[in-house]
Amino acid sequence: MTMNVLGYATHSPKDDLTPYRFDRREARANDVVIEIIYCGVCHSDLHQARNDWGNSIYPMVPGHEIIGRVISVGPNVTRFKAGAHVGVGCMVDSCQHCAACEQGLEQYCEVRHTLTYNDIDCHDRMPTFGGYSEKIVVSDKFVVKIPDGLDLAGAAPLLCAGITTWSPLRHWKVGKGSKVAVIGLGGLGHMALKLTKALGAEASLFTRSPGKEQDARHLGADRVVLSTDGGQMAAVKGRFDLIIDTVPYIHDVNPYLPTLSLNGTLVLVGYLGGLDPLLNTIPLIMGRKSVAGSVIGGITETQEMLDFCGEHGITSDIEVIKIQEINEAYERMLKSDVKYRFVIDMASLKG
Amino acid sequence: MTMNVLGYATHSPKDDLTPYRFDRREARANDVVIEIIYCGVCHSDLHQARNDWGNSIYPMVPGHEIIGRVISVGPNVTRFKAGAHVGVGCMVDSCQHCAACEQGLEQYCEVRHTLTYNDIDCHDRMPTFGGYSEKIVVSDKFVVKIPDGLDLAGAAPLLCAGITTWSPLRHWKVGKGSKVAVIGLGGLGHMALKLTKALGAEASLFTRSPGKEQDARHLGADRVVLSTDGGQMAAVKGRFDLIIDTVPYIHDVNPYLPTLSLNGTLVLVGYLGGLDPLLNTIPLIMGRKSVAGSVIGGITETQEMLDFCGEHGITSDIEVIKIQEINEAYERMLKSDVKYRFVIDMASLKG
Repeated sequence: MTMNVLGYATHSPKDDLTPYRFDRREARANDVVIEIIYCGVCHSDLHQARNDWGNSIYPMVPGHEIIGRVISVGPNVTRFKAGAHVGVGCMVDSCQHCAACEQGLEQYCEVRHTLTYNDIDCHDRMPTFGGYSEKIVVSDKFVVKIPDGLDLAGAAPLLCAGITTWSPLRHWKVGKGSKVAVIGLGGLGHMALKLTKALGAEASLFTRSPGKEQDARHLGADRVVLSTDGGQMAAVKGRFDLIIDTVPYIHDVNPYLPTLSLNGTLVLVGYLGGLDPLLNTIPLIMGRKSVAGSVIGGITETQEMLDFCGEHGITSDIEVIKIQEINEAYERMLKSDVKYRFVIDMASLKG
Repeated sequence: MTMNVLGYATHSPKDDLTPYRFDRREARANDVVIEIIYCGVCHSDLHQARNDWGNSIYPMVPGHEIIGRVISVGPNVTRFKAGAHVGVGCMVDSCQHCAACEQGLEQYCEVRHTLTYNDIDCHDRMPTFGGYSEKIVVSDKFVVKIPDGLDLAGAAPLLCAGITTWSPLRHWKVGKGSKVAVIGLGGLGHMALKLTKALGAEASLFTRSPGKEQDARHLGADRVVLSTDGGQMAAVKGRFDLIIDTVPYIHDVNPYLPTLSLNGTLVLVGYLGGLDPLLNTIPLIMGRKSVAGSVIGGITETQEMLDFCGEHGITSDIEVIKIQEINEAYERMLKSDVKYRFVIDMASLKG
């Protein structure tokens, strides 16, 4: 039997989000039914709500940083029991058979993964609706456990901002002795600093705003480099093994390439589009450097990241809002007026 | 005592190369004095002779694919004896102390390496002159042994074209089971195919010229992909672990990115400048792919490559010319009218 739930949806690129009732699917044998407690507000929620990427499906219920409590599970589910605290991130399905899925890299599924919202379920062809809602029904393979003791609201952004920065840190083998720099101090950037530091590496922040130094140091940055200051940029020439570039809009990556070490990599996690101004190959060739990309992370590594955060007491720095404040939160997000993530308290839906 | 030698030099960007007498330095304690037997003609010789990169020093004696015979050695030299066949590539010195040099990666010396020609010796501040000449004096650390049995003329291009493709093949761990594609079938491209194949990997060629298929297959290509054919490009979607891009002029790399596998790398070894059209980050992010660069190779890996070529009987496909034919050879090289490298027989200098 389908389940009617209340959420917040937008009905066109220009509409505000407003209350919306819709049906969730009847739970399948492998499904977990989750009551949503908190949902983080990712910058991509705003992009999708406003059709900035040209692929939006309406009505849309955004939200892919979901923390909830298990209500019930299908007969084939053994990993979860009612009452457990769980998380759901950006994906709710993938082919499970391709080389990428077999490596636990569902985010690179060669067939097609199913996004948590603004997508079509591959079994019943119904649209997917996200976490700005009371409940969600998700295949158990795409549900992760939230370690005991982790603040539930602060854990929500780990499901996207956390894993998006964790995955490249792990793939490029960051650990003790590594030197990592982060470009941009937003939702992703502040998680990148915390995780880098907890992995035992040196953490630096590139920023264009002198005012961010103190905050960055509180978050664990060993060094803050003002990218508009030629002298500061020259002082870190050849320093970084890995640069995590979290900037979500078009920007010039060329000034950062000389700060990479031999064999260093600048990994883009925020900006989808053409690199303008032109990417200069000379620093790449003359230092065997790379420009790479990375998107979110696999389910296994998401669980690994959550467990790591549990051990190290790492959560996101957040501002909890009511669902009724979501439209205002989007406007504030557009002005970068948030430290560093809004998280919706879903109890407010009933209020 | 300095040594007066005959070579061929150009005196301005517009001059032909003509006979030129100049002095080589008196051999230092660590030096090897070499009689040059063959010198390969690299496309960069032409760029430097004509000041295409804006940093040319005149008069210039080009040539950095040098094969010769040891005439004498300084008192501190133990690795070489008179009569031995040796090679000299693109570099004749480096700092020897930085982290890159200590890893045997002199091509990425953090202080400064000294190029074989069109550079300034870091000890005596004299200009360096290349291999289009009778003899050369080189520090023993930058001299490599030519394995017995390797054709000396065909071995000359290994010192630049060979090592430039070998180094990324090794750095990105190409071996049995790897799938490698090469863009461009010139001096570098034909060596990349031979070396890839000899390393036990699958070798493919991307080309815009249907006429190159037969030649590519003779060189070992398992597959030839016409890059102007959308169907052929789609057929290799997600296939290659490594693409070696040897194209020396501006070109669009975007069409090749979808042919990289998850975690695949496109490594530029030929083109110095801005990537135009704009590099699209979407395929990088959606498949954790990289665009990287690589330049020549270190001295240790050059020796390793030569030993490998000795074991596998690999040399370059060449056309031997007299030094008096060098200006005509440059014109033919501009039209890609060479399979695949000109090599100057230095005995012709006496003729």
